[in-house]
Amino acid sequence: MSGTLYLLPSALGAADSALLHPPEAIAITHRLQHFIVENAKSARAELKRLAHPDPIQSLAIVELPQRLDSQALDGLLAPLFAGNDVGVLSEAGAPAVADPGALVVRRAHERGVRVMPIVGPSSLLLGLMASGLNGQSFAFHGYLPIKDAERIQALRNLEQESRRFQRTQLFIETPYRNQGMFATLLAALSADTLLCVARELTCSGEWIRTHRIADWKKQTPPDLERRPTVFLILAEGGKPAPRQPNPNRFQVQR
Amino acid sequence: MSGTLYLLPSALGAADSALLHPPEAIAITHRLQHFIVENAKSARAELKRLAHPDPIQSLAIVELPQRLDSQALDGLLAPLFAGNDVGVLSEAGAPAVADPGALVVRRAHERGVRVMPIVGPSSLLLGLMASGLNGQSFAFHGYLPIKDAERIQALRNLEQESRRFQRTQLFIETPYRNQGMFATLLAALSADTLLCVARELTCSGEWIRTHRIADWKKQTPPDLERRPTVFLILAEGGKPAPRQPNPNRFQVQR
Repeated sequence: MSGTLYLLPSALGAADSALLHPPEAIAITHRLQHFIVENAKSARAELKRLAHPDPIQSLAIVELPQRLDSQALDGLLAPLFAGNDVGVLSEAGAPAVADPGALVVRRAHERGVRVMPIVGPSSLLLGLMASGLNGQSFAFHGYLPIKDAERIQALRNLEQESRRFQRTQLFIETPYRNQGMFATLLAALSADTLLCVARELTCSGEWIRTHRIADWKKQTPPDLERRPTVFLILAEGGKPAPRQPNPNRFQVQR
Repeated sequence: MSGTLYLLPSALGAADSALLHPPEAIAITHRLQHFIVENAKSARAELKRLAHPDPIQSLAIVELPQRLDSQALDGLLAPLFAGNDVGVLSEAGAPAVADPGALVVRRAHERGVRVMPIVGPSSLLLGLMASGLNGQSFAFHGYLPIKDAERIQALRNLEQESRRFQRTQLFIETPYRNQGMFATLLAALSADTLLCVARELTCSGEWIRTHRIADWKKQTPPDLERRPTVFLILAEGGKPAPRQPNPNRFQVQR
């Protein structure tokens, strides 16, 4: 009987553990001896922050290799085949969402290993909740093109798609380019498009605001320089999509 | 100085609180006297489950009205203008993600009220983590059309978009229609498309598997009847999108 692969969200920067991790998430982490991680150094710091009871050097912490073929993946999963539980830790936030850990999870499914996702912080989810930008749907796009002309075209496509489907669009930028991204958003998007800027979620510098582009232009730009930020947009005014049935009566999960 | 609007995720069915809520999330909930909720009855049950220290009947629990115009929204936010902190509770999972609570959050931003999202369970996030379906992006589509022909067309559009952008597509169904949805997925999608079925996340009946459609057809169908489930698909084989820069060096939040 193989072990279970636990997916463990990591802190988003320096935040109070009591705000991030359910007690059982910490208890599970404390019981694990094996970890698959993106970066061994920050994983050791995270495990120390979580007060793992064992000496950190005694834990089997394995970094994801560059090349993730089936053989490498099976090597990572070997402790599970031997009956051990293993934790996957990403750099920040939820593992296997927009990071290479997903391939490990996929291989686990192929090999019949049980995968258990654990509740914890995700800037994408927290940003979406706090934005007030409910649409019929939402989509995360990772990074936008770097070159100005391509970036502006990508933003206009996202805006058009947003208007058509009433879809909230989420994207991120490397933090040292945030100020430039913010300026581009104000220049490229329509006056009525809603933009949420969600900075340093769960940390002491947390700052979240939603305004129309026209209203953002009337304000002092926020300080986003080198501060991890999630951007969300919603363009209203399209033909409304057919009304969704109310899921609540059926206790559908969200 | 107005109060803070706290966004409080609710349990996804009968699950162990220790697995769902960071201690500070519970402490915040216990301090609140005012709540904006989708359904007062289930909110009272949730607050009882969370062992709120005050008699439940003494708490100001206000249901979202059907008509959410500015006047109604300002009525809901009135305790905040008076300096009280208020919690938003949805039926299950994260509030203001695909539920009417988002309009309250949006109005809060318009009125300059601080919004603080709290870490907790979300079936969409947990399902995405556990699916192993990492693409360049992901999108949640809510419910698909009900009529067979429209549903199949919608699925094929999602599959095509998935292949083109390497986008993981998430959607849900009212639980008593899950078995039918599962059968339709096997009939309508390509043999190589990856499908994750994530049932009853965080609950004792939690069951998560990812297989290609061709492999799902070789197995006994899972029991999804009336059991809240998230469906995720990823169609591979398209022209790969340009490689995303590695965000980890910049500690970009995820």
